[in-house]
Amino acid sequence: MTNDIKAILFDVFGTVVDWRGSLIRDFSAWGTAHGLTVDWPALVDAWRAAYAPSMARVRNGALPWTNLDALQRESLADIGPRFGLPAALPDDWQNHLIHGWRRLDPWTDSVAGLTRLKTRFVIAPLSNGNVALLVDMAKRARLPWDMVFATELFRHYKPDPETYLGAVSLLGLAPHQVVMAAAHNYDLHAARALGLRTAFFARPTEYGPSQTSDLRPDADWDFVARDIEDLATLLGA
Amino acid sequence: MTNDIKAILFDVFGTVVDWRGSLIRDFSAWGTAHGLTVDWPALVDAWRAAYAPSMARVRNGALPWTNLDALQRESLADIGPRFGLPAALPDDWQNHLIHGWRRLDPWTDSVAGLTRLKTRFVIAPLSNGNVALLVDMAKRARLPWDMVFATELFRHYKPDPETYLGAVSLLGLAPHQVVMAAAHNYDLHAARALGLRTAFFARPTEYGPSQTSDLRPDADWDFVARDIEDLATLLGA
Repeated sequence: MTNDIKAILFDVFGTVVDWRGSLIRDFSAWGTAHGLTVDWPALVDAWRAAYAPSMARVRNGALPWTNLDALQRESLADIGPRFGLPAALPDDWQNHLIHGWRRLDPWTDSVAGLTRLKTRFVIAPLSNGNVALLVDMAKRARLPWDMVFATELFRHYKPDPETYLGAVSLLGLAPHQVVMAAAHNYDLHAARALGLRTAFFARPTEYGPSQTSDLRPDADWDFVARDIEDLATLLGA
Repeated sequence: MTNDIKAILFDVFGTVVDWRGSLIRDFSAWGTAHGLTVDWPALVDAWRAAYAPSMARVRNGALPWTNLDALQRESLADIGPRFGLPAALPDDWQNHLIHGWRRLDPWTDSVAGLTRLKTRFVIAPLSNGNVALLVDMAKRARLPWDMVFATELFRHYKPDPETYLGAVSLLGLAPHQVVMAAAHNYDLHAARALGLRTAFFARPTEYGPSQTSDLRPDADWDFVARDIEDLATLLGA
């Protein structure tokens, strides 16, 4: 089967980078330097919790196409004051926080695993992050993507079919030649329904120490690995 | 001015890679191995000459959106028999020739220059080649792009404004923060009209030994370099 595989698409937030740990570290240091008293872990968790509902408003047509940076800006304005951020946040502070989503550290296996996979396959994110966000993140974190598929290119958010099929089509491939790799079962269910192959590995601390979701595969995914390095081994890279 | 610059978009065919020399070398060797008697330089030149008119049919609305691979396939069917290719070309032969546009060698300064520029700027192609073509080319030629802007993403060909402005917008930048770099004056005129900055360097043998076009800048472009390494020097990278 692996001989047939040409490309691997990666979910990014949680799958390739540790958004929660990175944001808490970044914002805590920045908050201290700016004399702010904010419960940063709680703010980060609430901000992340607003993410799916904000995309749902685009997915169900309540909002016209709006990219992730813009959705995050709106959510932050709603959520910030609840955790101690000034309601009238200076522009540069607002931008620092929103751009925090570009300053995310990869999990320890990510760069080594991607670098191995890149020798044999086309590797690209397929992420709900926008192009500018994903490009800045990749430069800082040294993620060696061959292409950056932001779902913004398709003006749809995952798990809309247009995103998976859009990337497959731009690569000039058939769905079965492409693997969707994610630490989230929902993403793989959507990809499998369209004929893509699937790879799962758990990121058991993505949501912090008391995470209960996505601790294990909930279907017989084509590849189940420990992490991205292990996936490279399974795929012969 | 350079402090303000965040990204550099590169034309690819002729600017970064030597399409004519590469195709003639590749096809000549392949043709010999397949016992074909074809005037390869003439075929390559005729094929390249069909490129702008074929895109013009898309740009003026005579054809619905059609990507470059598909346009090249049509042109080859028209042109091939004139230069000695069998009219009924086996599929794998046809694909080998069409995919020749992915097996293009970079000019000797390209990889070194791009690698330097990447340390300081976002670098990406802005090319009429399609995504699959540009991704395959970059892997083979080791072009270290941060993102691949095929004009296919915008369903327009250069020099339509949608292509330049589409890339600028996806990068979340203003036009004056982006440089269009090309060995073709027409590309820079279109970019400058939209507020992008411009960089020119000549590729005097792109069209072979008797090239007469684009031997020098025909306007006061923001940067005029000898090649991509020299451009990196001018931009402090």
